[in-house]
Amino acid sequence: MKKLTIIKIGGKLLDDEAAWKEAMKYFAKIKGAKILVHGGGKEASKICQKLGIETKMMEGRRITNSATLDVATMVYAGLLNKKLVSHLQSLGVNAMGFSGADGNLITSQKRLVDKIDYGWVGDVKNINTALIISLLSQNIVLVFCAITHNGQGQLLNTNADTIASVLASNLAKTYQTTLKFCFEKNGVLKDPLDDQSVFKTLAKTSYLQQKKEGIISAGMIPKIENALAAKQAMVSKVMICGVDGIYHLKGTEVCL
Amino acid sequence: MKKLTIIKIGGKLLDDEAAWKEAMKYFAKIKGAKILVHGGGKEASKICQKLGIETKMMEGRRITNSATLDVATMVYAGLLNKKLVSHLQSLGVNAMGFSGADGNLITSQKRLVDKIDYGWVGDVKNINTALIISLLSQNIVLVFCAITHNGQGQLLNTNADTIASVLASNLAKTYQTTLKFCFEKNGVLKDPLDDQSVFKTLAKTSYLQQKKEGIISAGMIPKIENALAAKQAMVSKVMICGVDGIYHLKGTEVCL
Repeated sequence: MKKLTIIKIGGKLLDDEAAWKEAMKYFAKIKGAKILVHGGGKEASKICQKLGIETKMMEGRRITNSATLDVATMVYAGLLNKKLVSHLQSLGVNAMGFSGADGNLITSQKRLVDKIDYGWVGDVKNINTALIISLLSQNIVLVFCAITHNGQGQLLNTNADTIASVLASNLAKTYQTTLKFCFEKNGVLKDPLDDQSVFKTLAKTSYLQQKKEGIISAGMIPKIENALAAKQAMVSKVMICGVDGIYHLKGTEVCL
Repeated sequence: MKKLTIIKIGGKLLDDEAAWKEAMKYFAKIKGAKILVHGGGKEASKICQKLGIETKMMEGRRITNSATLDVATMVYAGLLNKKLVSHLQSLGVNAMGFSGADGNLITSQKRLVDKIDYGWVGDVKNINTALIISLLSQNIVLVFCAITHNGQGQLLNTNADTIASVLASNLAKTYQTTLKFCFEKNGVLKDPLDDQSVFKTLAKTSYLQQKKEGIISAGMIPKIENALAAKQAMVSKVMICGVDGIYHLKGTEVCL
């Protein structure tokens, strides 16, 4: 079975050019088939603010109205995606940037209204696995932003961690897949104030226990849930790590 | 020889959703291999204005500073490109959106300073013809925005008419190529005030004569020059036309 590495980068990394360029230096060193998935960082919020677009929150979650979706599409699929692709090309990586609409690679459906209408937010529905495998086999490195579409002409804002997890889960049937969620910390921390207190491994049972006890910070929960979902779908190795964990074996390995 | 149709859309068409959706309806009907190239419209200028980015002009030409390039990348490669791709997908066209950085498809070089520094503006240097042919042979419809890169990590704003012309010229060796420049008029007009006064054909010699006499409007000159360059490079048919000319044989045919 051929190897595939999927790296998701997000969080504060994307707001700091030096940090994402260092991440790309490590990404360029990975051998074999690879995919990059990136989130958005704070740039979209900044631009919304400058354009006078109000960020509506409902029960702690952002509501994506049309104007906010346009900005997300501009920043994620335009500015960030093309800067990453162009930089990777300069490092000799044959990167090609995608939203889910391109080649119908990722379709999603608008999140169902259950008390709250989240607006133009989509949950992944289908992956065009055949086309992704075909592109990978041509030595193309796919760079996904977190914009998908519903197949009927509507773009949808989608969680980047989930995209990475679903891609890995779908491709695990064809490749021996490694999935790494890379962010500004070194991994899942025992003590959020101590960046060196990294769990070497995190098993599902101990995660559930620690979640119950409130040891694991709320922000880490969706990332860990996405990591566990990938493990459940036979992804070989799932890590939560910092920038140097992209290439080296560092960070927290998530197990069942 | 297989057939290829390259359609460039631009001008006011892109500012009017109903107009570009009508254009896409015609584009979807074209049989065989096809490529869409789109310009930017006025959206980028509007966003620059809202963000307080000054548009600097020098001898009638816009200077692209870093902030303007970021907005161009957001609007052309992000918003417009993904809206077009997502809409085409809803029409059953397997569209995939690209900047020149993606797959290193179009490299350019920063325009040389000759009295004026145009900023981050690039002139096309090289087309990755092999990868474009490979994508077309997989029935992928390529949708190019007018952002290219220099291969060293720098994105560059590039003229969309030129991209369409250079793509057609490069692909004419492999495909029997038709190139159509589609905009808000019905073709090259004898009388700019009469939208029905379309030249059926425009030969190089009569173009040069009319340019000398000031009959052809200044705005049409780069378009016609790009059309002539494509004819010179053995592109089978080059048209300047309106929306319905995308599918039907309408507009001005440019000849040598």
